[in-house]
Amino acid sequence: MKNLKLAICQMKVGNDKNTNLKQAGKMIGKSASQGAEVIILPEIFNSPYQTDLFPLYAEPFPGPSTEFLAAAAKKYGVCLIGGSIVEQDSDGRIYNSSFVFDELGNLLTRHRKIHLFDIDIPGKISFRESDTLAAGSAIGTFKYKSIGFGLMICYDVRFPELARASVLQGAQILIVPAAFNLTTGPAHWELLMRSRAVDNQVFLAAASPARNPAASYQAWGHSMVVDPWGTIIKEAGIDEEIVLIELDFSKLEQVRNELPLLKQRRTDVYQLKY
Amino acid sequence: MKNLKLAICQMKVGNDKNTNLKQAGKMIGKSASQGAEVIILPEIFNSPYQTDLFPLYAEPFPGPSTEFLAAAAKKYGVCLIGGSIVEQDSDGRIYNSSFVFDELGNLLTRHRKIHLFDIDIPGKISFRESDTLAAGSAIGTFKYKSIGFGLMICYDVRFPELARASVLQGAQILIVPAAFNLTTGPAHWELLMRSRAVDNQVFLAAASPARNPAASYQAWGHSMVVDPWGTIIKEAGIDEEIVLIELDFSKLEQVRNELPLLKQRRTDVYQLKY
Repeated sequence: MKNLKLAICQMKVGNDKNTNLKQAGKMIGKSASQGAEVIILPEIFNSPYQTDLFPLYAEPFPGPSTEFLAAAAKKYGVCLIGGSIVEQDSDGRIYNSSFVFDELGNLLTRHRKIHLFDIDIPGKISFRESDTLAAGSAIGTFKYKSIGFGLMICYDVRFPELARASVLQGAQILIVPAAFNLTTGPAHWELLMRSRAVDNQVFLAAASPARNPAASYQAWGHSMVVDPWGTIIKEAGIDEEIVLIELDFSKLEQVRNELPLLKQRRTDVYQLKY
Repeated sequence: MKNLKLAICQMKVGNDKNTNLKQAGKMIGKSASQGAEVIILPEIFNSPYQTDLFPLYAEPFPGPSTEFLAAAAKKYGVCLIGGSIVEQDSDGRIYNSSFVFDELGNLLTRHRKIHLFDIDIPGKISFRESDTLAAGSAIGTFKYKSIGFGLMICYDVRFPELARASVLQGAQILIVPAAFNLTTGPAHWELLMRSRAVDNQVFLAAASPARNPAASYQAWGHSMVVDPWGTIIKEAGIDEEIVLIELDFSKLEQVRNELPLLKQRRTDVYQLKY
C-alpha cells in the first residue's frame, strides 16, 4: 500500500467569516507547500461554535465557504476535507456538514453530522445542537487515491457503531473534525480517538480548532493522528498549528495480520446492520 | 440505585491446581471479611495459561474447581465470579469458561469465551487458543441483587459489539477476567477497559492474574475498576493484591443523564442485532 502525506490545520476560529476563510487559506497553502496531499480543517471552521449563531452563519451549497474550499483544493492540487460548516438546506433545515473536494475542485462527498451534541453537565457545560441543527443520516465514507476514508464529525465519534460501519464500508483512516471542550476534552478526547483506531485497526486524524480565549466555547485543541495500533504519532498543543505527517499504510496491514480482529468478529453472535 | 461492594482477587497462578484453589480460597475469604458482596477471580485462575496444557487441566461441570467455587460462595455468602477455568464439555470440546455462583452456592450463569485469542506478533508474542479451545456463542449477562452484569473473558473485550450487546441486554457493570501480556498490556489494557466503560456508560471491573515470573505466559496485572465516566477508581500493581471498592450506581444514572449516549444512538442509521 501507498504512503500519504496528511496535514491538520488547527486554526483559531473567530466571529468574522471572511477572516476565518482567509486564515484557513493561509494554513492550507502552508500545508500544501510542505507536501500535504490531504488537508483537514476543524469542525465549524468558518464561524463561532454557538448554537444561536448557527442560523446566522448558515449558507447553502454551493455558497461562499464551499466555493472557497473548492478553489483552494484546485489551487493547491490537494484533497481538502473542509472540517465542517453550517449548511443551509433548501428544505429550510440547517446541518453541521463536512464538504470534501478533490485536487480538481470537484466535490468528493458531503457528510452531515449524524449525532447531535446535546449534553448537560451541571456547573460545567450545557450545549444543545438540536436547538437549531438537524441531523444527517448517511455514513460518510469516500475514496481518494485508492485509500478509504471515513468521516465523523465530533460527537459522531462517541458511537462505536458508526466507526465500525465506516470501516466495514472500507475506511482505512477515520477523519474526525471535532471541537471537544474543557470538560470532555481532558476526560475523553485521547481515549476515544485511540480506541476507535485500535478497535478498527485504522489510522485516525482528529482536527480541532485552536483554543480561542475570546470565544464563548473553548475548544480543547490537541489535534492528533493515531496509528492502527493506537499510538499517537503526532499531536498538537492548544494554539494554532499545522500537524503534518506521512502515513505508511503498510502499518495497517501489519497490525491486521498480527491481530486479525476484523476477521475474528463473531457475526454469528452479533451483527451490525447499516 | 444501590451501592455494591466489590473485590477483585489479583492472585498469582501456578502449575498446581490444588495450590491455586487454596490460594483463591484465602483471597476470597479475606475479601469477604472486608465486606465484599461480589468477588471476582482472574482468567484461568486454577491452571497455567498455556494452550498445550489446557486439555490436561480441563474438568467438567460439576467438577473440583466449580464445586470449590460453589462452596466458597456459600461459605462466605457472596456472589463469586469464578474468573475462568478450562471446561471439559461432554461433547469432547474444551472451553475457556466463567462460572458464577450466588450466595447460596447456586449457579447463576456460565459464560464461555466467545472470541478466542489467536495472535501472532513476530518477536513479541504468538498465541493460539483455538489450537485446543472451542468458542462459546452466548452473551454472558446475568442479574444479581437487581444489578445487571455482563461477562466478557479477555479477548472478548476487544470487540465493541459484545460490550454494547451486553449493555443493551441490561448490563450496568462489565466484568472482564483477563490475562493480557507484556505486549498488549502496556499498549491496550487501560485503553480498552476505559473505552468500553465510557462508550456504554457502565462500571467495568477487569481481573488479571498477578505477574508470575515462573510462568511461560506473563500476565500484565493492573486489575482495575473504571466508573461510567471512564475514570479508573482503583487499580492494582503487578503483584498479588485484593482490589476492594464500593460502587455507587447512582453515578451511572448521573452520567447517563448528563450525556445521554445510549438514547442518542441512531438506530435508524445502524442497528446491532444479537
